[in-house]
Amino acid sequence: MAQSIKTDACLNITTLDAKDIRWPTSLGAHGSDAMHTDPDYSCVYVTINTAEGTYGNGLTFTLGRGTDIVLLAVKAMKCHVENRTTASIYGNFASFWRDLTSESQLRWIGPEKGVTHLAVAAIINALWDLWGKIRGVPVWKLLTDMEPEELVSVIDFRYISDVLTPEEAINILKTSQHNRQTRIDELIAKGYPAYTTQVGWLGYSDDQIRTLCRKYLGAGFTAFKIKVGQNVDNDIKRCKLVREEIGWTNKLMVDANQIWDVNEAVEWMQHLKEFQLLWIEEPTSPDDVLGHKKIADALREHGIGVATGEMCCNRVMFKQFLQAGALDFCQIDSARIGGVNEILAVYLMAKKFNVKVCPHAGGVGLCEMVQHLQLWDYTSVSCTMADRLIEFVDQQHEQFVQPAVINDAARYVAPALPGYSTELKAEAIAMFEYPNGTEWKRMFADGTFQEKDY
Amino acid sequence: MAQSIKTDACLNITTLDAKDIRWPTSLGAHGSDAMHTDPDYSCVYVTINTAEGTYGNGLTFTLGRGTDIVLLAVKAMKCHVENRTTASIYGNFASFWRDLTSESQLRWIGPEKGVTHLAVAAIINALWDLWGKIRGVPVWKLLTDMEPEELVSVIDFRYISDVLTPEEAINILKTSQHNRQTRIDELIAKGYPAYTTQVGWLGYSDDQIRTLCRKYLGAGFTAFKIKVGQNVDNDIKRCKLVREEIGWTNKLMVDANQIWDVNEAVEWMQHLKEFQLLWIEEPTSPDDVLGHKKIADALREHGIGVATGEMCCNRVMFKQFLQAGALDFCQIDSARIGGVNEILAVYLMAKKFNVKVCPHAGGVGLCEMVQHLQLWDYTSVSCTMADRLIEFVDQQHEQFVQPAVINDAARYVAPALPGYSTELKAEAIAMFEYPNGTEWKRMFADGTFQEKDY
Repeated sequence: MAQSIKTDACLNITTLDAKDIRWPTSLGAHGSDAMHTDPDYSCVYVTINTAEGTYGNGLTFTLGRGTDIVLLAVKAMKCHVENRTTASIYGNFASFWRDLTSESQLRWIGPEKGVTHLAVAAIINALWDLWGKIRGVPVWKLLTDMEPEELVSVIDFRYISDVLTPEEAINILKTSQHNRQTRIDELIAKGYPAYTTQVGWLGYSDDQIRTLCRKYLGAGFTAFKIKVGQNVDNDIKRCKLVREEIGWTNKLMVDANQIWDVNEAVEWMQHLKEFQLLWIEEPTSPDDVLGHKKIADALREHGIGVATGEMCCNRVMFKQFLQAGALDFCQIDSARIGGVNEILAVYLMAKKFNVKVCPHAGGVGLCEMVQHLQLWDYTSVSCTMADRLIEFVDQQHEQFVQPAVINDAARYVAPALPGYSTELKAEAIAMFEYPNGTEWKRMFADGTFQEKDY
Repeated sequence: MAQSIKTDACLNITTLDAKDIRWPTSLGAHGSDAMHTDPDYSCVYVTINTAEGTYGNGLTFTLGRGTDIVLLAVKAMKCHVENRTTASIYGNFASFWRDLTSESQLRWIGPEKGVTHLAVAAIINALWDLWGKIRGVPVWKLLTDMEPEELVSVIDFRYISDVLTPEEAINILKTSQHNRQTRIDELIAKGYPAYTTQVGWLGYSDDQIRTLCRKYLGAGFTAFKIKVGQNVDNDIKRCKLVREEIGWTNKLMVDANQIWDVNEAVEWMQHLKEFQLLWIEEPTSPDDVLGHKKIADALREHGIGVATGEMCCNRVMFKQFLQAGALDFCQIDSARIGGVNEILAVYLMAKKFNVKVCPHAGGVGLCEMVQHLQLWDYTSVSCTMADRLIEFVDQQHEQFVQPAVINDAARYVAPALPGYSTELKAEAIAMFEYPNGTEWKRMFADGTFQEKDY
């Protein structure tokens, strides 16, 4: 295995800097859903600096309040990163990842879930951005260029070896090497299909929805997702309205954001079955593997798939969703489970169980990150785009130095620049760092927001 | 239902105070196990004050580093408690609990797991202590005295109604009312059986183990638990050693604290099957329902039960463990899932599936709290002590105003004083509040601890 590992320039990591950055998105009901009625899209933003000047950025997405809690968790972990060489991390990345997630005192307040795992994600994502910059390639290409043995060496197989061994993972990757260059060329030429969630946030009026359907149809989109779950009559009305706008050949998905109990989900969806829905997303608790299994079994006869994953807390939970046949669409989130290393394991398990991965995106920086992962899925894992789509939400991209770009055919353009596309613009930080950014000071001063609300 | 709800004195809550308190237990390897090698037993300690002077205390247990993160989460939630009346909370306790756990921005960094749910537990536990004091009874008696309708009204059934409805829960409690006074009298006269984990922490030497076995046998204990999982030969040696000391009529349990993968757990336990073990505790990831099911199925022929729960993050996970037949002993933890309200739901689901509840305890204040819950199980839910035991670890009790007490027959003495037994002594706080308590200042000054280690 050793000879397949590439030798990188070895940089000296000096500091890990972390910031709490929040945008006042609740003012426009952007991102509102059945459970998250007033999100202020936010992130903990990590910069890993090296003595040589190269740096890596990573983030985890949050909804406003609580960002400071995740920030404190990142700070509690930075001793694992500062004053190390990059070679000492990338050369033993799986064991570094385990040290970070299994720290003997901190793991009690997780383990591998919630605040501490969001913190891990921000740090690990920054390390992948840095690795891409060291090798001079975008992360999707970094992953694609790795030999199977090197790629698998970054994964911690703890708790998943009963379902996927390193040997099986290597075999999956080896089998998928056939014709890889053709797929790379295709991605660079044509990009990767996207769907939009921008047409139907719960806070939007009917007129807004119609206008947005037309806008995104005009932009080439053929797949649309709307939020449901607060009122069944309203959901029927909204589905009708969207179908009127987009017709019946385009894809329509709905998202309940965990509002229902198991039986309620099955019953509610009977009222929506006529709308030919590709999937119902997050019908119930993100922790309920057996509940999703029951829902998936009940909805199969209507041709409605079950999708979940954006709040699935780690690879152990994904393993069970896949084992149980509890989901049809696996929606990994790039900032909730512990960064790229753990996500790779989920893609490989999904491949083993023949489940389609359609990444969750939106928020802050999620589109920027997941495009890399899904491109790698196409070059190196599933090798197909059939019924696979990347979520696209047109928010916060302008905050990034290298924003995700959608082309005229409503496809993600393959990132060309080195790294993970995770660097925020300096002015975004200056304006929106919480609570001392210039925009927050202005909004507190003019009464747009009350500081006590946080 | 309304007429069965008791009317309490309505107090005016003024402030919620929260503190980070840590004991340097890592110095003696007390509490060390395969995954947590150097715990400093700690807690976030909550005091809810009222204008009338009555106050409630609650806590969540932590292991040192990270206690400040949970503290920050408690502070983010205190706006839900301060400046409210007690009646507005206890009169709609299930809906209060849901507001606390489903706060629209904070839930993203959970939901209902890890840091945020530990914070919920500390707050909710303090509210039960306060409620006990208002009614002038210990919490186990508060629970026992409630009419089924009132008790069930405090539970949020979200995500569990497919397995337990409020009506079923009420029926369970009604059926169990028969002969209740006899069981109450028995508990007051004789107490509730305990087992000890004090004889076999991984950091202990053989001599320490032998000495402790003799000490706890002398104290009347008939059930013993030791830590395993770092080295199979060492585990065999330690099991032999303990069996030599305690004989074969007494009960022996082992605890792996999540060290193994699923198949590894099954294989490892083949080497220990000769020791007639009542249970293997935490054989693998606390999130792996299907993995535990596989282990439980494999070990059944050897008469070894599977136990887990101390790191099970919420009622949705417990629901699945119970549904799947993945555990034989359900080890609720009083400070990890969201306090008493959620734990009541787990006891009722366990009753439905005929699974024995044997609470996790030890740490800081866990023995003090779980005794109340298990006493209620005997008076009002399972109504039996068959194969049921409360863990007892002889640590940190001296820090409490009303410590858990074990009688000469190694049974927990039923608490008699009002509340949840969760009040720390003033001098414990003065000495061990982190980092400014007198003991921490002394240890930083004399080099026993380095402040940078936190």
